[in-house]
Amino acid sequence: MPDILHKVGIKSASPSDVYKALTTIEGLSAWWTTTTQGDNNIGGVLRFRFGNGGFDMKVLELDPARRVLWQVVDGPEEWIGTKISFDLDQRGDWTIVLFRHEGWKEPVEFMHHCSTKWAVFLLSLKSLLETGKGAAWPNEVKLDSWE
Amino acid sequence: MPDILHKVGIKSASPSDVYKALTTIEGLSAWWTTTTQGDNNIGGVLRFRFGNGGFDMKVLELDPARRVLWQVVDGPEEWIGTKISFDLDQRGDWTIVLFRHEGWKEPVEFMHHCSTKWAVFLLSLKSLLETGKGAAWPNEVKLDSWE
Repeated sequence: MPDILHKVGIKSASPSDVYKALTTIEGLSAWWTTTTQGDNNIGGVLRFRFGNGGFDMKVLELDPARRVLWQVVDGPEEWIGTKISFDLDQRGDWTIVLFRHEGWKEPVEFMHHCSTKWAVFLLSLKSLLETGKGAAWPNEVKLDSWE
Repeated sequence: MPDILHKVGIKSASPSDVYKALTTIEGLSAWWTTTTQGDNNIGGVLRFRFGNGGFDMKVLELDPARRVLWQVVDGPEEWIGTKISFDLDQRGDWTIVLFRHEGWKEPVEFMHHCSTKWAVFLLSLKSLLETGKGAAWPNEVKLDSWE
């Protein structure tokens, strides 16, 4: 089963700082989508919107400054049931984020699209923490005419 | 076997323009690494260097304005034997690039790193064609302290 894997290292940010950006509505709104709402506690559902579409994620695990795990409960068919995790590790002055989006059934073109798009948003997370400014939707790099 | 998949759409660039950036020493030097050398014909070997390390790629397929396929013949152990392809498709005013780096044995951390790094360089390719300026090594976004 193909997975989307990424890594970003974030300079001069602690795992706690990164964890905050991954687990608060304010943080998520600053690097992923400005229209983020919902319940950010374990068992709660976060609602990420991008204009007409979006994703609902159930929060499955929260391990402060170490790990976040979500499962997609609503959104595009290819995403439903897939899991998204962020594992954090401090190395010297850097926090390393290992990202996984697991459970894709087929390596369809939409998976290519989402893989690059995740990189775009993870670079926005890095920028948010390193410079104070992310590029959340609708201000991120567009990869196709329909975006 | 896990693969790295990406997609970038490049606005106001023809498949021929993108193909040129993927198949000439000048083009490759402008978006991937400034230290690109070698033979860009079928059967030739391209040498991409990033300071001390790098990759040697044998050119397996060249289908003008449609497809490029390389195989890694020297470089990090995890890369040797893997294949890298770029498939081009014109859609309205955009050229869509579907990218695959196939043949990884294990989803090791280095694969996470390379996945995001490919996105960084494909965004550099997009920027080169859309704005005239890419961010080839050593000027690209760094993901870790050892880079």
